[in-house]
Amino acid sequence: MKAVVYEGPRKVTVKDIPDAKIERPTDVLVRVTTTNICGSDLHMYEGRTSFEKGRVFGHENLGEVIEVGTAVDKIKVGDPVVLPFNVSCGFCGNCERGLTNYCLTTQPDPKLAGAAYGFADMGPWQGGQAELLRVPYADHNCLRLGEDAWEAQTDYVMLADIFPTGYHATELAGVRPGDKTVIFGGGPVGLMAAYSAVLRGASRVWVVDRHPDRLALAEKIGAIPIDDSVVDPVEYILGETKGLGADNGCECVGYQAHDPQGNEQPNLVLNQLVAAVRYAGQIGVVGVYVPADPKAKDKLAKKGQLAFDYGLHWQKGQTMGTGQCPVKRYNRALRDLIAEGRANPSFIVSHELTLDRAPEGYVHFDGRDEGWTKVVLHPGKA
Amino acid sequence: MKAVVYEGPRKVTVKDIPDAKIERPTDVLVRVTTTNICGSDLHMYEGRTSFEKGRVFGHENLGEVIEVGTAVDKIKVGDPVVLPFNVSCGFCGNCERGLTNYCLTTQPDPKLAGAAYGFADMGPWQGGQAELLRVPYADHNCLRLGEDAWEAQTDYVMLADIFPTGYHATELAGVRPGDKTVIFGGGPVGLMAAYSAVLRGASRVWVVDRHPDRLALAEKIGAIPIDDSVVDPVEYILGETKGLGADNGCECVGYQAHDPQGNEQPNLVLNQLVAAVRYAGQIGVVGVYVPADPKAKDKLAKKGQLAFDYGLHWQKGQTMGTGQCPVKRYNRALRDLIAEGRANPSFIVSHELTLDRAPEGYVHFDGRDEGWTKVVLHPGKA
Amino acid sequence: MKAVVYEGPRKVTVKDIPDAKIERPTDVLVRVTTTNICGSDLHMYEGRTSFEKGRVFGHENLGEVIEVGTAVDKIKVGDPVVLPFNVSCGFCGNCERGLTNYCLTTQPDPKLAGAAYGFADMGPWQGGQAELLRVPYADHNCLRLGEDAWEAQTDYVMLADIFPTGYHATELAGVRPGDKTVIFGGGPVGLMAAYSAVLRGASRVWVVDRHPDRLALAEKIGAIPIDDSVVDPVEYILGETKGLGADNGCECVGYQAHDPQGNEQPNLVLNQLVAAVRYAGQIGVVGVYVPADPKAKDKLAKKGQLAFDYGLHWQKGQTMGTGQCPVKRYNRALRDLIAEGRANPSFIVSHELTLDRAPEGYVHFDGRDEGWTKVVLHPGKA
Amino acid sequence: MKAVVYEGPRKVTVKDIPDAKIERPTDVLVRVTTTNICGSDLHMYEGRTSFEKGRVFGHENLGEVIEVGTAVDKIKVGDPVVLPFNVSCGFCGNCERGLTNYCLTTQPDPKLAGAAYGFADMGPWQGGQAELLRVPYADHNCLRLGEDAWEAQTDYVMLADIFPTGYHATELAGVRPGDKTVIFGGGPVGLMAAYSAVLRGASRVWVVDRHPDRLALAEKIGAIPIDDSVVDPVEYILGETKGLGADNGCECVGYQAHDPQGNEQPNLVLNQLVAAVRYAGQIGVVGVYVPADPKAKDKLAKKGQLAFDYGLHWQKGQTMGTGQCPVKRYNRALRDLIAEGRANPSFIVSHELTLDRAPEGYVHFDGRDEGWTKVVLHPGKA
Repeated sequence: MKAVVYEGPRKVTVKDIPDAKIERPTDVLVRVTTTNICGSDLHMYEGRTSFEKGRVFGHENLGEVIEVGTAVDKIKVGDPVVLPFNVSCGFCGNCERGLTNYCLTTQPDPKLAGAAYGFADMGPWQGGQAELLRVPYADHNCLRLGEDAWEAQTDYVMLADIFPTGYHATELAGVRPGDKTVIFGGGPVGLMAAYSAVLRGASRVWVVDRHPDRLALAEKIGAIPIDDSVVDPVEYILGETKGLGADNGCECVGYQAHDPQGNEQPNLVLNQLVAAVRYAGQIGVVGVYVPADPKAKDKLAKKGQLAFDYGLHWQKGQTMGTGQCPVKRYNRALRDLIAEGRANPSFIVSHELTLDRAPEGYVHFDGRDEGWTKVVLHPGKA
Repeated sequence: MKAVVYEGPRKVTVKDIPDAKIERPTDVLVRVTTTNICGSDLHMYEGRTSFEKGRVFGHENLGEVIEVGTAVDKIKVGDPVVLPFNVSCGFCGNCERGLTNYCLTTQPDPKLAGAAYGFADMGPWQGGQAELLRVPYADHNCLRLGEDAWEAQTDYVMLADIFPTGYHATELAGVRPGDKTVIFGGGPVGLMAAYSAVLRGASRVWVVDRHPDRLALAEKIGAIPIDDSVVDPVEYILGETKGLGADNGCECVGYQAHDPQGNEQPNLVLNQLVAAVRYAGQIGVVGVYVPADPKAKDKLAKKGQLAFDYGLHWQKGQTMGTGQCPVKRYNRALRDLIAEGRANPSFIVSHELTLDRAPEGYVHFDGRDEGWTKVVLHPGKA
Repeated sequence: MKAVVYEGPRKVTVKDIPDAKIERPTDVLVRVTTTNICGSDLHMYEGRTSFEKGRVFGHENLGEVIEVGTAVDKIKVGDPVVLPFNVSCGFCGNCERGLTNYCLTTQPDPKLAGAAYGFADMGPWQGGQAELLRVPYADHNCLRLGEDAWEAQTDYVMLADIFPTGYHATELAGVRPGDKTVIFGGGPVGLMAAYSAVLRGASRVWVVDRHPDRLALAEKIGAIPIDDSVVDPVEYILGETKGLGADNGCECVGYQAHDPQGNEQPNLVLNQLVAAVRYAGQIGVVGVYVPADPKAKDKLAKKGQLAFDYGLHWQKGQTMGTGQCPVKRYNRALRDLIAEGRANPSFIVSHELTLDRAPEGYVHFDGRDEGWTKVVLHPGKA
Repeated sequence: MKAVVYEGPRKVTVKDIPDAKIERPTDVLVRVTTTNICGSDLHMYEGRTSFEKGRVFGHENLGEVIEVGTAVDKIKVGDPVVLPFNVSCGFCGNCERGLTNYCLTTQPDPKLAGAAYGFADMGPWQGGQAELLRVPYADHNCLRLGEDAWEAQTDYVMLADIFPTGYHATELAGVRPGDKTVIFGGGPVGLMAAYSAVLRGASRVWVVDRHPDRLALAEKIGAIPIDDSVVDPVEYILGETKGLGADNGCECVGYQAHDPQGNEQPNLVLNQLVAAVRYAGQIGVVGVYVPADPKAKDKLAKKGQLAFDYGLHWQKGQTMGTGQCPVKRYNRALRDLIAEGRANPSFIVSHELTLDRAPEGYVHFDGRDEGWTKVVLHPGKA
């Protein structure tokens, strides 16, 4: 089968590798029809992680089931399914609590928890930027789609990661109807967080970024764009809220945060959030932070530490939730919103490419080239 | 009236000052019968804050109502009452949400929120280490006690601060029946957090400290003491939990955290908690952290920053709640537990002194002298 | 001052009565500019309650503060305010828990709880269908409005009762994003419940009624109308949900429920909800039920009992929440949604009348005359 | 293998039937060492249900895994396990929400939901009052026990049903620390509810019953017994709470409720709860109610209806939760409480019998013979 293979920093190729196949009775095999390039693929693509050469990318996957294992009861051949990026078992101590993001079964390293398709340090699972994908614990992992699955693939594929992840940010931030919410970061996840905040009934949503294409999309979905290369976002939000601050905030940037001049400052966005959110406000952080970043310039960052404004955070009595999204906690409800026409997350998609053109997609998306907001690949298509 | 007056670093005297009196129709006047010295008084006593000379200490107060304002409807002369340390109005935007810890009415500085009796930067309210106390918004602030009030004063006075504050730590940490919970800090608040965790049905509670008197009290209330001058608490807890960590953790130490050798390390306990608590675990922080600490040695600490292990915290997907306790959220329920004989927080009391002996109490409590775990003053007594 | 006075079954007059005035230092006096006729006024209007002749109706009130008591700190003369229909103190045991709907201070009967302006069995408080209104515990009860208060009165006045009450139905029913929700009753409260369900992110909302004007409004706000004079609503909903039922349901009808043929059946709607909602689904009941209804034909109803399908309810493991709405729990958030242009509950208003024309309004609204969906009175206007 | 077989109303025999065996790759086979007779077995035993002759009883089961299917990953041969009475799949729409009590996969009737071992109308699953038990979806259904499993079997077996079910009653009733809680019914489930309320920090717990042995056990675990053959429980509780009522209440009796004189009154206990619980209080109902009871004398009861005091229930704004317990929601936490020595639910056990003596156990337990509070069977023992 054809697949997108990592060849080293900033190099991917599309080539033939052995077919994925059923290995356990609880597996199914999926013919992938839609698979996205994600911002977190770029960390690996840039060579900043331990991702091994020769592995296949792709954790945002949708397709058709073409074979089922002997112990699979619910999923049938022919089902259109979308797969949560987290690979999980459903029965370990964490999965039982709904923490499929921290599965103890699918992650072989006993010091870690959680697994994903095609991801550094998250288990041996092959990625889905390929023609076929093996899905373990399939009755647990597959989300079945309805009759409109094939014509609305670019909406439904967002259920694999970025729509639930953006929604998770708003859940960690405790966004409630009537709230005023600030989102830092207008990339795909930040826009999905803004979209989710609006869906949940926030009365006002701000998106802080500096890329005109992203800010334009933010405005399109009913949020107020703040260009932090023009105004100080903290002062702006305090000014709009009688000095009280936003009710809640979402961090959708991560450890590679940098100021408008391009200088990496890992603590920049978190400290801005602490300053911009009110007393007793909640902050949800889905932007990725890492326990060690040996290639960072900053001394603290090398050790996975930040110079965090903890005193102010504590004085304001804020609560902060963090971490990867447990996709299964949200994907049914978000699927229903798409199916009923209440949500159309495909507004984010800028490019649909055949699998062969994946390398091109990586170059432009990694370059944050104007207009390349989200790249979708279609392995089946010629 | 007699009162405990701050005269400068490490100096208090008991002297006559003008009587407290009713100033607004919503006030009541209380004759104080029991008032505690709190660990947070020591920050001020040591001269590390902006607390002004001539002011009166005391935010853990209990007494009898001796006069009521013309707009007071519920509280009557003769009622035994305990006062939450937070002074709050009951009707501002924060109080309406139950955030009496961040009242916007009783705090005159518009950049801050929240007030307390006899406290630096928390409004003009006189402290209760005195014979009389003015209580504003009295129908809202007074918690009435039952017939056993006078004989159980040393239990009920703990409702002013440390019992709800310890309980709040367990609430921020999300302690549920069956959980394994670690408490860092075995001072009065840490012991109340441990006591609360047991009351809430935790299956195992550890208390980390190094003072033998505190560790003995921890054991007495059903917790497992960990002496961090002997073992590494993180390794110990991971060892006891198959490497998974505690379900939740409470920080009851604050920014003056120091290692067993006595070196101040403001980030020590927080980073230990991140390491000792499991994936997706919750951490509650009631130990005080400050937005600026000009007299600190540490460069980050001067600015109110910490070198925080944020990468690991995020990877583990932990949630952290912080800040002062909104006492009114808990004091009725905890009062009922005392009244029904299910809770006896006076186990913490080591010394009961007349008001005149307050200076002596400050010296020993500030010195963390062996056996001086909690000092209670009785203004009325000769 | 002029006021709408109850003269006996189906008779109100507008006449001069003594001016409302400040009686306690915590009161304010409001010049009423907008006040609604509510469906619950009709129970009293029809003479089915103990409401005394000579009393004034009106519990949905908005106006301008023209005088403040000496103990009022927050509210100022000139403030535009909307008043929750519940009259509450803010400091009793129930108010402290947020149960302003069950205030123990403002209700003089010790066997009851909760009070309202101009309402049978809910305390002595005069109604607001008048030129002036006395508001007790004003800092607690008044919700201040912003600069757009006067031009958007017909939106903001809905914060006094029906918008929060409809929202409360969805809260009791636990409506979450993605849910499929059924609302029984398309009167003002039912429509507000449907509106709230949409605001909260429900994926599909059904409204069951039989009046074409109400069903048309339901459709206008994004709900699916079900005419129960044409189809069986239970069969319809089961048919649309693979036999599983709706995720949650709201009861917005009350004890005067009747079948499409006009026969009163007090248990009709509740039993339909039990049948139409899925296993473990939640049901919120804001339609009024009474502990005794001596004039009812039904033998059980006389005693305040219903022949309830409890066996099926239990087998399905449903949860049911009931009762009047604690308006203050929601009115700030809903105000902000109006202020930000996210909600416009005035869509419900069919008629705006001067106070003098109130009797006319009562006749048509009580007759459920086609097109009289909601009547608003403006006391100030000539 | 030997098993307890139902032969018709009030008749069971112990006889040889074909061995249970592994039928699907996700099954395990358990050698049962401890299995209880449950109060809900008695409904079937008395012939009041559709339970078929020849079927095997037993849904409270504990034992050792002796064989595992090829798709089982977590559970190993030799593991001591306790099985939730609910048989569930883990991956259907309900199980995903944690509603293992309403599994859609294991219940063959599409109009119903939920399954159990050896239970009328709850699927084809054989009961565990036998030497061997087939456990489907074993990685999901088995709860593994620790090293003390075998010596503490009578504690751990309570995790199969009555301990979680009693706990569920307190969860549905929202019992929080400090609450005053009333439990109606002092049978095994009622006592477990009382025990759970104490564990959760209730300040006062009442148990209403009339059997001296049950009331004595209630007192032993820290509850206050109320003998309703001597006092009116509603008046008593109102008298103890200044007329306000209990904070919450648990129904642990069910549709066969009868007054102290022995007359069956299906609505008796529910209406007492409505009267005894305060405004806005919560009520949890785990006593069984059925959608139809053709053999009942009461006309409403035949149709599964109750004459319910709905008017008072609504006026008080109470919330009511109902239904069977989803055991997996609680069994890990409760297991940990047993393992840490904080809970010892075996206090309920009055008799431990060999499997051969099961018929004798049924006779006495069904007769509510004094002292026969809970019967445990040990299939392995001679």
